[in-house]
Amino acid sequence: MTKEFIADEMRKLQLHIVDQLEQLDGRGSFNEDQWFRKEGGGGYTMTFKDGNIIEKGGVAFSAVHGPVSEVMKKQLKLDGSEFFATGVSIVLHPSNPWVPIIHMNVRYFELDSGDFWFGGGIDLTPHYIREDQAALFHKGLKDICDRYHASFYEKYKIWADDYFYLPHREETRGVGGIFFDHQNDLNLLSKEDWFSFTQELGRAFPVLYGEQVKLNKDHAYDANNIEWRNHRRGRYVEFNLVHDRGTKFGLLSGGRTESILMSLPPMAEWTYQYEIQENSLESKTQSLLKKDINWL
Amino acid sequence: MTKEFIADEMRKLQLHIVDQLEQLDGRGSFNEDQWFRKEGGGGYTMTFKDGNIIEKGGVAFSAVHGPVSEVMKKQLKLDGSEFFATGVSIVLHPSNPWVPIIHMNVRYFELDSGDFWFGGGIDLTPHYIREDQAALFHKGLKDICDRYHASFYEKYKIWADDYFYLPHREETRGVGGIFFDHQNDLNLLSKEDWFSFTQELGRAFPVLYGEQVKLNKDHAYDANNIEWRNHRRGRYVEFNLVHDRGTKFGLLSGGRTESILMSLPPMAEWTYQYEIQENSLESKTQSLLKKDINWL
Repeated sequence: MTKEFIADEMRKLQLHIVDQLEQLDGRGSFNEDQWFRKEGGGGYTMTFKDGNIIEKGGVAFSAVHGPVSEVMKKQLKLDGSEFFATGVSIVLHPSNPWVPIIHMNVRYFELDSGDFWFGGGIDLTPHYIREDQAALFHKGLKDICDRYHASFYEKYKIWADDYFYLPHREETRGVGGIFFDHQNDLNLLSKEDWFSFTQELGRAFPVLYGEQVKLNKDHAYDANNIEWRNHRRGRYVEFNLVHDRGTKFGLLSGGRTESILMSLPPMAEWTYQYEIQENSLESKTQSLLKKDINWL
Repeated sequence: MTKEFIADEMRKLQLHIVDQLEQLDGRGSFNEDQWFRKEGGGGYTMTFKDGNIIEKGGVAFSAVHGPVSEVMKKQLKLDGSEFFATGVSIVLHPSNPWVPIIHMNVRYFELDSGDFWFGGGIDLTPHYIREDQAALFHKGLKDICDRYHASFYEKYKIWADDYFYLPHREETRGVGGIFFDHQNDLNLLSKEDWFSFTQELGRAFPVLYGEQVKLNKDHAYDANNIEWRNHRRGRYVEFNLVHDRGTKFGLLSGGRTESILMSLPPMAEWTYQYEIQENSLESKTQSLLKKDINWL
């Protein structure tokens, strides 16, 4: 299984997801931007705006290679001289506050030393958390995990709770999902199956998000719901810019800024000491932004 | 000159600035929040919103003390067991796109070892840069610097250019100003004069900002100007959350999140590959977002 094959499959995955999302949204189409990296490789950043459902979103593919830099050595604790990395990453910000924000990333990394690994993650950030819908989402992820290894869902769900967390707010980004990095244990899966696991997650993405969209897209909303959505978008910005290791590493290592920051919402609001009414839907959501909830 | 005296003067400076800004704005008043820090000390965070001129802003005072933590040792490279820190920090976001965003911070730090230092900075972030107004602002800062030491303005202006810089955008935050940290050279100034320098900067703040406000507050604006302001506010968020060392240190060391993030604008926007028209006022501003401009 060559790196060229994996990169080709990642690009196909991007195009498949884009196609599915265009059908789901029903208005407009993704715009494609090809770019090249000075040190080697490049990508296609596909972005979308002002759809029926998605206000702003992106599905990015990249396949880059080159010498292992000092930043990579330090941040990724890598030992090698040449690297290759490919993956797909997605963030979608819907306009309707009842439709959740969603993120997905699958990636493959290898070094000229022969070392390789896979990583990925999917997490859901509802502006308003509904426990049954969070359960549906987690059930979908567990089904895929279970087809590969009985240990995966539990392990990767905890990893997501820890990763998608804002310590300075003492809250999770949303209802979590799964997250894994640096996975290459051939006692668990063959390399082919590790690859297949990431691709199956990627293909499940539009299906899982489609379920969430269909359940919520016709839910009426008012100015109060919009205000809360904008406040929650502010927290999304805080997570991505302060904590997200992928974003920080990308910006520090000279990644393509516009592709990295396509994850930011179209707009966000900040209010000093934002007040939440007691016994409101907002306070219920706030109370559920914590780790270690068993949604299933 | 005791630390208690310095803290008292910092608190007086906060109240003076608040009073001056209320007069400048002419509508509404600052809201005061007192808070305490578990490990010792606390502060008063004074915030303002929906004024005639200032849409969102804060003037924060704090005086905190306690054991030197691991984060402080690592981030501040401190050698000591107990610290004391006091200061005033301000960020104001005006509604009119022609009025600039402004930031100021003055601070004093000491260790039980007897070591002490002063720091501070003022920088201006016009949504639309006008060179004559940037020159007026820099002239005001140079006048104060020159009263203390002939070397200060040049040195601290370069420091501000370097500090208020977004490497991932290859642009400065605005037209800069001055920035200095860890200043305690008694060959340059006595401790009393270092202190006096920071206080004079603090007292000049409402005067310098008042000049900028008066020149711009009646300038008419349209939806296009608002869109650009919101885009520039997005960059302000990026600087504060990705690069600002004060913000990062505060959030990492368990500072009071709401006081630290009062610097964020009321709202901000992000557009993938934001397009600027050639030969527009926006493109002129973009072209001036660089280091090493001699505004005087």
